[in-house]
Amino acid sequence: MIAELRVRVAALHRELTRYGLVSWTAGNVSARVPGEDLMVIKPSGVSYDDLGPESMVVTDLHGRLVDGDLAPSSDTAAHAYVYRHLPEVGGVAHTHSPYATAWAARGEPIPCVLTMIADEFGGDIPVGPFALIGDDSIGRGIVETLRGSRSPAVLMRNHGPFTVGQDARAAVKAAVLLEDVARTVHFAHQLGTPASIEAHHIDHLYARYQNVYGQ
Amino acid sequence: MIAELRVRVAALHRELTRYGLVSWTAGNVSARVPGEDLMVIKPSGVSYDDLGPESMVVTDLHGRLVDGDLAPSSDTAAHAYVYRHLPEVGGVAHTHSPYATAWAARGEPIPCVLTMIADEFGGDIPVGPFALIGDDSIGRGIVETLRGSRSPAVLMRNHGPFTVGQDARAAVKAAVLLEDVARTVHFAHQLGTPASIEAHHIDHLYARYQNVYGQ
Amino acid sequence: MIAELRVRVAALHRELTRYGLVSWTAGNVSARVPGEDLMVIKPSGVSYDDLGPESMVVTDLHGRLVDGDLAPSSDTAAHAYVYRHLPEVGGVAHTHSPYATAWAARGEPIPCVLTMIADEFGGDIPVGPFALIGDDSIGRGIVETLRGSRSPAVLMRNHGPFTVGQDARAAVKAAVLLEDVARTVHFAHQLGTPASIEAHHIDHLYARYQNVYGQ
Amino acid sequence: MIAELRVRVAALHRELTRYGLVSWTAGNVSARVPGEDLMVIKPSGVSYDDLGPESMVVTDLHGRLVDGDLAPSSDTAAHAYVYRHLPEVGGVAHTHSPYATAWAARGEPIPCVLTMIADEFGGDIPVGPFALIGDDSIGRGIVETLRGSRSPAVLMRNHGPFTVGQDARAAVKAAVLLEDVARTVHFAHQLGTPASIEAHHIDHLYARYQNVYGQ
Repeated sequence: MIAELRVRVAALHRELTRYGLVSWTAGNVSARVPGEDLMVIKPSGVSYDDLGPESMVVTDLHGRLVDGDLAPSSDTAAHAYVYRHLPEVGGVAHTHSPYATAWAARGEPIPCVLTMIADEFGGDIPVGPFALIGDDSIGRGIVETLRGSRSPAVLMRNHGPFTVGQDARAAVKAAVLLEDVARTVHFAHQLGTPASIEAHHIDHLYARYQNVYGQ
Repeated sequence: MIAELRVRVAALHRELTRYGLVSWTAGNVSARVPGEDLMVIKPSGVSYDDLGPESMVVTDLHGRLVDGDLAPSSDTAAHAYVYRHLPEVGGVAHTHSPYATAWAARGEPIPCVLTMIADEFGGDIPVGPFALIGDDSIGRGIVETLRGSRSPAVLMRNHGPFTVGQDARAAVKAAVLLEDVARTVHFAHQLGTPASIEAHHIDHLYARYQNVYGQ
Repeated sequence: MIAELRVRVAALHRELTRYGLVSWTAGNVSARVPGEDLMVIKPSGVSYDDLGPESMVVTDLHGRLVDGDLAPSSDTAAHAYVYRHLPEVGGVAHTHSPYATAWAARGEPIPCVLTMIADEFGGDIPVGPFALIGDDSIGRGIVETLRGSRSPAVLMRNHGPFTVGQDARAAVKAAVLLEDVARTVHFAHQLGTPASIEAHHIDHLYARYQNVYGQ
Repeated sequence: MIAELRVRVAALHRELTRYGLVSWTAGNVSARVPGEDLMVIKPSGVSYDDLGPESMVVTDLHGRLVDGDLAPSSDTAAHAYVYRHLPEVGGVAHTHSPYATAWAARGEPIPCVLTMIADEFGGDIPVGPFALIGDDSIGRGIVETLRGSRSPAVLMRNHGPFTVGQDARAAVKAAVLLEDVARTVHFAHQLGTPASIEAHHIDHLYARYQNVYGQ
């Protein structure tokens, strides 16, 4: 299982570069190892060109290295905190994707003015607190914000987005769609005020997308 | 014929990714099967990397599966409605391309201030109503809006664009040019007000492009 | 010589797609055949993927087909007019690149606020008149505007840019740098007013770049 | 050592094109040859497609050609001045990346409103003077501005950014992250005013990133 997760998590980093969500080595994806207090995560400061399954790192859910030759991502503590406190989460992604981070810099939630936001995020996309790296502050900010929302994404103030999902692929999907809607709503706001979607329509769209979409 | 349409429709999805009109698995193209009450359409929630001719789905014009191993696009009902009510349409494309969707979010038509808009769209690009997925609402909104316009594109409010054409390639071309002009006019409006093109010039440009351009 | 120009002109179209200056089949490059009243130009409405040397078209300087299997670009008359009236011009390029076209839509020259504009364009980048396709109007608008300027680029109102050069490569270079500076100055104007470069500094930069830069 | 630096510097130019920091042949990277008064730099006006190790040029720290078949970059004097006056610098990069250059055109420092700016730049990213090419003016402007800052990047007014690092890779990394944050802060300012990060938090972030991040 860990070998397979190494392959999957390494491959998912290619979606971050494909969609322009990351520059240089910033941004990372992790997956919980099902049934164990372990996770698979990107190493710190390694080029996306050089990320293969063998360079992925295994840590426990306090971020201590269990397997791997490289130091884990500097955001490992935040990922670990999320897995400890949100048992339904199986994957976490973190980027500084430009439009989502611009909303985060202003500390402004992304309003639910598109059907795609209702589908995937179930309402406005919330803002988390400013938090310094180095202890549990970022992880706590993510968890406290997501607990009050249907959204799998949180915009950490002055920093950038974190997204979660039932597995790493779902977390990366949320990161991709987040940047897409952050950008479109940014464009819409530049030239006017988009109309809101009514709450009962948001509920209808969210329920349908979560249950009917896909194979 | 269906085998050939599977090849063409699958290949046309690559234009959606090439021009950045879609993220993840959102967006879809279909083609009417000439002389039959059938259409070929993308399956729901499948990655663009994995779309080959064999993964395309055949449905009737009420969206019921006729051939294929996968569930059809969640937008199949809208495509089917268009084919039932606009017999001259042979292809439909749907995206959430960012600039066009920003105009849709504000419910604002794209004004005909570029010769390319006159050429391809024959005037302002119209806005369709807000409509929920799940019944004929989206299809009806598309058809009612396009009937009052020369435009092959409609901006569905809070949702995104649908485009039509005599075949699937023409519908995809309209989707590509729509995003191009939505973006340029967005840029123009950010720093001022572009001059309008007079109606008789629009008519001249539209007539020439529809009849003389190409091979 | 014509065989070699077919290769070069076909290859230069790849720079238009590489830099995102064109969508679908819009945009075209031509080269004058030195010492003859002929030019090599792109065919009309052919996909950039399918443009090889053999698909290029040879016309006289009134746009009449001399060699080639395909109909020439619908902008052939404008290219031909430029070659007839500006003997120093050996190449012409036309795009609807988005930022340059946004300035064209507003009918606003791009002010010389960057050293790159002084280097390549020698001052503000001028706006040409609104002109309909189908006769010499576009060509005349280009020539009359460029005659009053050091700029190799003109922003044709509500339409898009045309650029010229001593050969086709220089015209394409001007098209690429035009979009680059159109974009940067657009960004600068969105959040304030960039400082002007003084006229004698522009002269210094232009003279140096035209004479010292390159191999 | 020079042979290895030719390989490295040539390869680093691919990062400039990958991240869209340069158009045509504008932009250049150099590396100091450790222990010698020499540097390796890009030739002038050569296409990025044609840059291999053998096309790199070796000059002394006054920009005089020492080895290579091509004329050195027209920005060689500025690179050389930096190496003469900042002995800790081992690499220099110069681009006209669009968002950073827009800040430079307005002569406006990029405020430290993102954790990524605190991490990599240690505070606001400063503006350097307007300077003409052709003597030591640009180099002097870079050095005087960087001496008063922790930032490895300076926005040269009406021109574009220069970045430095302990080696060429670090200088290119700074150029990439500079454009990333220039863009995100541009977006943030378009729709409001981002909150500042307090000075002691900036110090904390900068110290941690410089000492803990990476392998």
